[in-house]
Amino acid sequence: MEKLRIIKIGGNVIDHSEKLHGFLKAFSNLSGYKILVHGGGIMATKLAEDIGLQAKMIQGRRVTDIETLKIVTMVYAGLINKNLVAQLQMNQCNAIGLSGADANLIKAQKRPVQDVNIEGKNQQVDFGYVGDLFEKSVNTENLAVLLDNNFTPVFSAITHDGKSQLLNTNADTIASALAVSLSKKYETSLIYCFEKKGVLMDVENENSLIAEINEPSFEKLKNDHIIHSGMLPKLQNAFDAINKGVKEVLIGKADELASFNNHTFGTRIIK
Amino acid sequence: MEKLRIIKIGGNVIDHSEKLHGFLKAFSNLSGYKILVHGGGIMATKLAEDIGLQAKMIQGRRVTDIETLKIVTMVYAGLINKNLVAQLQMNQCNAIGLSGADANLIKAQKRPVQDVNIEGKNQQVDFGYVGDLFEKSVNTENLAVLLDNNFTPVFSAITHDGKSQLLNTNADTIASALAVSLSKKYETSLIYCFEKKGVLMDVENENSLIAEINEPSFEKLKNDHIIHSGMLPKLQNAFDAINKGVKEVLIGKADELASFNNHTFGTRIIK
Repeated sequence: MEKLRIIKIGGNVIDHSEKLHGFLKAFSNLSGYKILVHGGGIMATKLAEDIGLQAKMIQGRRVTDIETLKIVTMVYAGLINKNLVAQLQMNQCNAIGLSGADANLIKAQKRPVQDVNIEGKNQQVDFGYVGDLFEKSVNTENLAVLLDNNFTPVFSAITHDGKSQLLNTNADTIASALAVSLSKKYETSLIYCFEKKGVLMDVENENSLIAEINEPSFEKLKNDHIIHSGMLPKLQNAFDAINKGVKEVLIGKADELASFNNHTFGTRIIK
Repeated sequence: MEKLRIIKIGGNVIDHSEKLHGFLKAFSNLSGYKILVHGGGIMATKLAEDIGLQAKMIQGRRVTDIETLKIVTMVYAGLINKNLVAQLQMNQCNAIGLSGADANLIKAQKRPVQDVNIEGKNQQVDFGYVGDLFEKSVNTENLAVLLDNNFTPVFSAITHDGKSQLLNTNADTIASALAVSLSKKYETSLIYCFEKKGVLMDVENENSLIAEINEPSFEKLKNDHIIHSGMLPKLQNAFDAINKGVKEVLIGKADELASFNNHTFGTRIIK
């Protein structure tokens, strides 16, 4: 089985050109099959402001109306995606920029209108053009054609419903769905880059990195209240991916990806 | 040799959703290998206006400054490209949206600052981030991987220089360069869609279509002043492509692509 690495970066890398430059060099130097998944960053917000569009949020979640969908399609699938690809090509990495619509690689379904509890009241909320993934969302066959011919897919977080509608989808979810689906064909590592070195014993101390977490140690860390709040769902999603076939999940700092090949990158989460 | 059709559409199709819908259906129904190349349309101009950017033109040619490049990358490679792909996927056409940066498919060089005669005076003009193609611009090997695996490439008119710079490139030129390069591997037809039925004996009369033009008849049509002004460079470029290996060039109306399979589409230009 070929090894495959799926790496997700977010706004904290994309918005800093120097950081991004270093990250893309390290990514290009990774040997073997790889996929990059990127989120948005402040560019979409800035463009929306420039054309006088106001972001609509419900309980911390962005509502994607038709104008917002246009903007994220332009910024994520156009501006960011093509600039990442051009930089990777400069580094001799044979990147190919993709959305989920391309080659029907990731299909989603529009999130149905749902009841949301807002300030104690149940309200019907339409999150707009947001795509949720399902079990067979990922077209592994077409993706394998690209990977096996030494292309490096670079995914923006835009999907489609197969009926011509583009949809805005969470980039973390896309990375995880790709990893789970492709783990049938490849020995797959899923790598989340975020602002910290990894999972820390003490969130204020970057030297307190936990090198490895497995299911029993996760239980202990939870019970000892070392892992809580925002980190909890991240790790639960990681174990979820591992239980569906992904070999390992790594959480670490984009700046440190260069040390990936000598196994000192971030926190490694295994079964 | 497999047959390959390369079809170019411009703003006159893209800007009319009903026309576009019909065209994409007809394109999807074309049998065999095919590539779509699209230009921009009014969307880029509109977005530029919305964010308060003024188009800069020199002698009818747009100057692509860095802000304009951002906009055309967003609109062409993002919004238009992904919407075309999503619609083609709905029609069961396995479209994959691409820029020239993706898989290093089309490399260009930034147009050098040049002397332009403006109102009788020679002036140095920098057209900005405009990419000119050269003989080996097209990566036929990577394109063949996509075609031979039954993907249908959909190209926006954005290229790159291999040093991480995206460039704005003329869509007609891209279509022609693809056709010439791929004619070594495939029996290639190049199809330009524009607002008329084809080359007309009388430009005011859509029933005066010239079904076929070869080099001797082209000479005669030129001498008789039937072909002149805007149509002249179009046909010269067509013969140029044919002399470099393209089997035929067709010029016709996007609405009529459905009749392509029964050989009644537009004007056919052959050796």
